[in-house]
Amino acid sequence: MNKRKISENTIRRLPRYLHHLSELAASGKKCISSLELSQILGISPPQIRYDLGHFGEFGRKGYGYYIPTIRKEISRILGMRYGYKAILLGCGNIGRALLCNFDFSNYGFSLLCGFDTNPEIVGTVLNGVEIKSMDDLESYLAENHVDIAVLCVPRTAARAVADILAENGVEGIWNLTDTYIAVPQGSVIVENVHLSDGLLWLGYNIKEKAYEDEKRKLRLARQRTEVSE
Amino acid sequence: MNKRKISENTIRRLPRYLHHLSELAASGKKCISSLELSQILGISPPQIRYDLGHFGEFGRKGYGYYIPTIRKEISRILGMRYGYKAILLGCGNIGRALLCNFDFSNYGFSLLCGFDTNPEIVGTVLNGVEIKSMDDLESYLAENHVDIAVLCVPRTAARAVADILAENGVEGIWNLTDTYIAVPQGSVIVENVHLSDGLLWLGYNIKEKAYEDEKRKLRLARQRTEVSE
Repeated sequence: MNKRKISENTIRRLPRYLHHLSELAASGKKCISSLELSQILGISPPQIRYDLGHFGEFGRKGYGYYIPTIRKEISRILGMRYGYKAILLGCGNIGRALLCNFDFSNYGFSLLCGFDTNPEIVGTVLNGVEIKSMDDLESYLAENHVDIAVLCVPRTAARAVADILAENGVEGIWNLTDTYIAVPQGSVIVENVHLSDGLLWLGYNIKEKAYEDEKRKLRLARQRTEVSE
Repeated sequence: MNKRKISENTIRRLPRYLHHLSELAASGKKCISSLELSQILGISPPQIRYDLGHFGEFGRKGYGYYIPTIRKEISRILGMRYGYKAILLGCGNIGRALLCNFDFSNYGFSLLCGFDTNPEIVGTVLNGVEIKSMDDLESYLAENHVDIAVLCVPRTAARAVADILAENGVEGIWNLTDTYIAVPQGSVIVENVHLSDGLLWLGYNIKEKAYEDEKRKLRLARQRTEVSE
């Protein structure tokens, strides 16, 4: 089995599997069939069998998948056991929301500290995380290995901060600034988060549902006319 | 051309096209080839031609795509002209981040008001948006048509609030509570946002890059040994 063959689409689906399998495990469930999993995830059973088939034969006929094994394998594939070290840049609304509500350790990351330019925040501790001055970012990176930077600075500052991160050996940027950051291939890896994507998807589906409802009403009206004729 | 045939994967990519095409348009660009677009988006040129081909023949040989036309078509497909009405529930860190920084109108949505349980916030105005009491949610929904609810309440309250929304005719829920909400098929449409997905994808890619770097070093070392032998 060649691990190179896992497609980007499968990799993108793995966090979703992990999320739901963890919820199922927390509720005490041990095994699940691809059909059950399909109903929860909205992914077809063949797709699920294909995705999970990459990591060996977890499924047992008549029993389904053994949840602890798949969770362990997905965590391994996603590199969750490497104890990646993260810093957070920009402690405005979105940065603060992550600092206070997002459980980095749950995903195998340890959040070392935050950085901000606001002197009122610098030096304080938010949810157990120290906020340092943005002026000290470069010297901090020179002395500490950082795998991932969580970028929550204002849009206008995104590019400049990303350059400092890339030049100082940070390996990945989780970009939540709602602006696209392009970096030369082979340097730092960037995940550009666009929250609006989900909102636009919702808008599309509401439009489609309205269209389907309208079509159904028309069909019913036509049937009624035919019956009464 | 049957519009029913647009796949879920294509629909999921449309916001990304729109995002980048809007940035290109803002920088004064009028036309773009599928190759250029491919380099920006990291999507293959055939995939781009396939996706955009759903909406008619935008491309002109030797000229590429005319950006204003594609933007207009994608906006139309996504239903961005319907003026969807949204409310936001829960004005904690993430809710406040959206209220203050997210430009709903840019995506064709109008944000009517926010709701919260905290008496210190209720009655205030945040970034031009009035915050009402969560106790008034049902009566508000009885009197006002709401297309989409932006759900930012604490995880433990998510299910109960979602039920109120579904029972009172809200059509879509943009669920940012980091807990999965399942609803009966055919009722309200839910987009469950899992921020952690992007972080886990980053972790995977850092692991893979380290693995590739290691392999390259090994190969180089082997070549050197062979040369010196």
